[in-house]
Amino acid sequence: MPAYATNMRLKFPILALILEIITIILFAVFTVYSDGTNHDDHKKPSNETHDEPEPMKLYPMFQDVHVMIFIGFGFLMTFLKRYGFSSVGLNLLLAAFGLQWGLLMKGIWHRDAAGKIPIGIDSMINADFSTATVLISFGAVLGKTSPVQLLIMTVLEITIFCLNEHLAVEILEANDVGASMTIHAFGAYFGLAVARVLYRPGLRNGHENDGSVYHSDMFAMIGTVFLWMFWPSFNSAIADPGLPQLTAVINTYLSLAACVLSAYAISSLVEHKGKLDMVHIQNATLAGGVAVGTCADMNIGPFGAMLIGFVAGIISTVGFKYLSPILAANLGIQDTCGVHNLHGMPGILGGLAGIVAVALGKKDGDAAMQAAALASSLGFALVGGAITGLIMKLPFWGQPPDQNCFDDSIYWEVPAEEEENEESGAHADHSKNKAEV
Amino acid sequence: MPAYATNMRLKFPILALILEIITIILFAVFTVYSDGTNHDDHKKPSNETHDEPEPMKLYPMFQDVHVMIFIGFGFLMTFLKRYGFSSVGLNLLLAAFGLQWGLLMKGIWHRDAAGKIPIGIDSMINADFSTATVLISFGAVLGKTSPVQLLIMTVLEITIFCLNEHLAVEILEANDVGASMTIHAFGAYFGLAVARVLYRPGLRNGHENDGSVYHSDMFAMIGTVFLWMFWPSFNSAIADPGLPQLTAVINTYLSLAACVLSAYAISSLVEHKGKLDMVHIQNATLAGGVAVGTCADMNIGPFGAMLIGFVAGIISTVGFKYLSPILAANLGIQDTCGVHNLHGMPGILGGLAGIVAVALGKKDGDAAMQAAALASSLGFALVGGAITGLIMKLPFWGQPPDQNCFDDSIYWEVPAEEEENEESGAHADHSKNKAEV
Amino acid sequence: MPAYATNMRLKFPILALILEIITIILFAVFTVYSDGTNHDDHKKPSNETHDEPEPMKLYPMFQDVHVMIFIGFGFLMTFLKRYGFSSVGLNLLLAAFGLQWGLLMKGIWHRDAAGKIPIGIDSMINADFSTATVLISFGAVLGKTSPVQLLIMTVLEITIFCLNEHLAVEILEANDVGASMTIHAFGAYFGLAVARVLYRPGLRNGHENDGSVYHSDMFAMIGTVFLWMFWPSFNSAIADPGLPQLTAVINTYLSLAACVLSAYAISSLVEHKGKLDMVHIQNATLAGGVAVGTCADMNIGPFGAMLIGFVAGIISTVGFKYLSPILAANLGIQDTCGVHNLHGMPGILGGLAGIVAVALGKKDGDAAMQAAALASSLGFALVGGAITGLIMKLPFWGQPPDQNCFDDSIYWEVPAEEEENEESGAHADHSKNKAEV
Repeated sequence: MPAYATNMRLKFPILALILEIITIILFAVFTVYSDGTNHDDHKKPSNETHDEPEPMKLYPMFQDVHVMIFIGFGFLMTFLKRYGFSSVGLNLLLAAFGLQWGLLMKGIWHRDAAGKIPIGIDSMINADFSTATVLISFGAVLGKTSPVQLLIMTVLEITIFCLNEHLAVEILEANDVGASMTIHAFGAYFGLAVARVLYRPGLRNGHENDGSVYHSDMFAMIGTVFLWMFWPSFNSAIADPGLPQLTAVINTYLSLAACVLSAYAISSLVEHKGKLDMVHIQNATLAGGVAVGTCADMNIGPFGAMLIGFVAGIISTVGFKYLSPILAANLGIQDTCGVHNLHGMPGILGGLAGIVAVALGKKDGDAAMQAAALASSLGFALVGGAITGLIMKLPFWGQPPDQNCFDDSIYWEVPAEEEENEESGAHADHSKNKAEV
Repeated sequence: MPAYATNMRLKFPILALILEIITIILFAVFTVYSDGTNHDDHKKPSNETHDEPEPMKLYPMFQDVHVMIFIGFGFLMTFLKRYGFSSVGLNLLLAAFGLQWGLLMKGIWHRDAAGKIPIGIDSMINADFSTATVLISFGAVLGKTSPVQLLIMTVLEITIFCLNEHLAVEILEANDVGASMTIHAFGAYFGLAVARVLYRPGLRNGHENDGSVYHSDMFAMIGTVFLWMFWPSFNSAIADPGLPQLTAVINTYLSLAACVLSAYAISSLVEHKGKLDMVHIQNATLAGGVAVGTCADMNIGPFGAMLIGFVAGIISTVGFKYLSPILAANLGIQDTCGVHNLHGMPGILGGLAGIVAVALGKKDGDAAMQAAALASSLGFALVGGAITGLIMKLPFWGQPPDQNCFDDSIYWEVPAEEEENEESGAHADHSKNKAEV
Repeated sequence: MPAYATNMRLKFPILALILEIITIILFAVFTVYSDGTNHDDHKKPSNETHDEPEPMKLYPMFQDVHVMIFIGFGFLMTFLKRYGFSSVGLNLLLAAFGLQWGLLMKGIWHRDAAGKIPIGIDSMINADFSTATVLISFGAVLGKTSPVQLLIMTVLEITIFCLNEHLAVEILEANDVGASMTIHAFGAYFGLAVARVLYRPGLRNGHENDGSVYHSDMFAMIGTVFLWMFWPSFNSAIADPGLPQLTAVINTYLSLAACVLSAYAISSLVEHKGKLDMVHIQNATLAGGVAVGTCADMNIGPFGAMLIGFVAGIISTVGFKYLSPILAANLGIQDTCGVHNLHGMPGILGGLAGIVAVALGKKDGDAAMQAAALASSLGFALVGGAITGLIMKLPFWGQPPDQNCFDDSIYWEVPAEEEENEESGAHADHSKNKAEV
């Protein structure tokens, strides 16, 4: 079975090293430090900062976004019982490479007079943003792909993301400060298209490891809560300074707060005996941050933001409960983390809210261009994701066989769960691969 | 047994949705964005920020406080072996609703000329503060109350907190920058009063789930350490800018550092064979942050702050070891998290230190007004908590029966602890309710 | 066996209380608040902050460093299966005392005109830095030392660190903004010298508790990721404001990103069947932050930083795989966390890179002085560590016997791992000491 040649010993190190070496060469040729001014004197301290721009002003917000990318996304995906190493570990790998690639791809459109790509805090924020698309898509295919496949997806998705974002934001001049359309909807539908192409009939009836245990749900809550707390920074980091940025913070804060209430309420309403479901709590409570993204810096009023969050919490929870099973059963879309419910539908909701808000004059803009940006994001995502999925489907990237899905031990050295159980042999199977070829 | 109608299917969703809808309506009527100036032009970026106030200046401190509320309090309470979902999950629910309610209740006293409540970073910090009182009280009744009861407590406690705080800080003009009195002592005694009213004789001899396991203590340490690190932001966020704010940071940093040493030392001194006890480490190490709160921005000298922290660590540890069992056995006060030792006594210590410091001229103020503010905080807490407890005791809020206390599975869908054990049936009982009616 | 008198009941509390009381007295005599100006009026808010320095400007960076010290180092060391309480708990103890001691020791060299030690945000950052040396050394002796031994090490190591740092940075005027030499190499070789003196032949063939379980590796990743994210703040916090500080952030961000790729690649290359090893992922991904430290604020170009990180990831991973076993077997250096691979060799690499960069004119300086600072750091570390190790080896500090190494239960009250297993007796041995004397 060559399709299941999951030994990564040569193909993964070679790919990772080549990608990094190419990237370092490109950085050597194309990038320069940039503090927003033209001088370039590193040798003496700049004591006269009074009249200059403040190159570090956005640094605290950058760090909030950084935490969302590496802790937030990383731990959110650790809910699977046997896939925590991969969730947080591959999240680190993909984001660390993705931010370098994103600096280059995004920088192509923003070169200085000398043709160089300037690197500063704002470009670091945008680089982190570009990795978010990959991490969203990662959620759709979590547990079913090899590190090699995922590195390939990272290169392709960030490239396509930067194309679409350039079109939507710079050519169409659409508003999307919190990137409901260009990051969330794009990342979700890109990932869903990949998942569709990589459809596994063998997982139609579920998989014993495709679920959580008590502690893995607790680790996932670390991710959820950090995402929830720092989302105002995500939606406001690249807003215009002053009132627009403040507005983006307030709107996101309130949208998320309202979203928690509706997500909890609907979770209880649709579940057995009115109990809360951790899947909803971990994910749907964040939909308000996604959905308010496009409108975040607009004058929609605090209650407008809350209304968006409130609706997003409902849509997302209902999606997890009723829509995801239908997509899996009828359309062959196996969406491990339910990114359609957290990023897909709330992202579209955000795009639609943006069209309405611009039409109502909440911010200068053109409602038709907003709609075009939403359509563009969905189109690039679906086509780009399908092509990327086809490339990822090539049989020599080490994709895991069905029975080894959702299991760290195929790509990681995994210790026993507990020392005592190991002695008793109860976990013996877990420290070994089930199918090594 | 109607008192134990713990099925939340209708009562919880209906209450949560109604509360949120009412809140959104109140926000639509009463709130406006505020950057501290009077202009309100969202449509163009404010390029001329030189002469304006900086509306985002306190944003990094706000985020520190935010982390304390959602990660700090949330994970600190996950020490219970079977109550992690509720600890971090209900913490999120109560704080998300509480901050909205707090914006309204606090804002009533701070309306602008048009009668509107202005929302900016400072009001978001105060809203987070108001939720802290609820989360402290939550600790006292942790494991023994339903989500419906807790939402009711949130509405009432924040309302009463805002009344007392207005009295203490604005009418009595007491100093309480880090809120030893108005948040910590208030929240603790409010919660203890509720716990007294909800006294459960059936838990007199303990409960098998009222304790930790190894991993749950590790999760709790995430909460402890984040609270410990960011407490300087809590105590200084609303201090006057410049030296007073810096002083509040330094005093809190040093008080907490000294408190760690005394808490560890006393823990070892009072425990079996000189061993350290996680309950003390998780909680008493934070007492220095509580106790230095009132004096944080005063010129008490670095050693003054350390002395307060040193004493707080001793009082708190001794309280956990000797006082809590007495309160439970003799006064019927079952304090799950020991909030009396972390927030109650250190809060009073902070209030007393504030009286002394003001009397010694460490800051302008009136020692009698400091004392009145402390008395007011305790009075409002005890009376308000008792009344709130009586309302929470009404038999239709879904309070859990004794045998289901401290167990997530009564209100949550809970996966098995471990896949293997599930197969062997060892955990079968845990994924089901013990008493569903 | 008096050498194994591990009961801490008197010796630990007495030492901790005496150290803290002495420290408070020294603070009372020697320290004052400092906002960088000379005025000292705490009683009124300073409304005129326009022309003054901003005493809180570095506060967000201080908090990032604070998170690295308390969450980063603390959780990174929780990878051991039965030593999580000690890892995060003793980390808190040592850092809380160390920062107080560091404020005094560092402050000796920076007294004001009145002979007082000024305390502000910059001195708090430096105090946190000084604790980092102790926490690095702690990693080398993790699991094999008592709290009393570790407190002694803290006092001595920070004192020696401040001596060496004063020599290296202020007398030799070497560049070391991110402290590759003065913190990382120093802390590592100090700890290795201590470990060599405390060599335990009984652990030559390993110890059943000297390893991880699945969940402990997950907790460790919390530490890894927070260290990784906030390292740019560590390396830039004390850089000159403006472009140098920005450069330090960018270089560290990029070095770490490149380091992740090489660490993952080499981990897969050297491991069984190409699998990734959590030891490498948790540690070697951080080597880029260490190695770029000395050069962080220099004009080495983004690709220069990436090259340093890329090489550091390789060296560190190879060190874990091949060098550590040799050091343990042949030189008697039992390095629990592999600090030689994360801090030792990457620290030397950083020092060497600094010599080259200064020689190439990337920053004003003297390459010979850079080399002298590296030699000084290694010399102070090895001699100071050996002397400290000899003092720690005295037979009355409660050092654990071999069979109780790597086990929380010798110094902590430890609950059973799981309630169910406790009932079945499987964990009964774990909640008790194996050897209490």
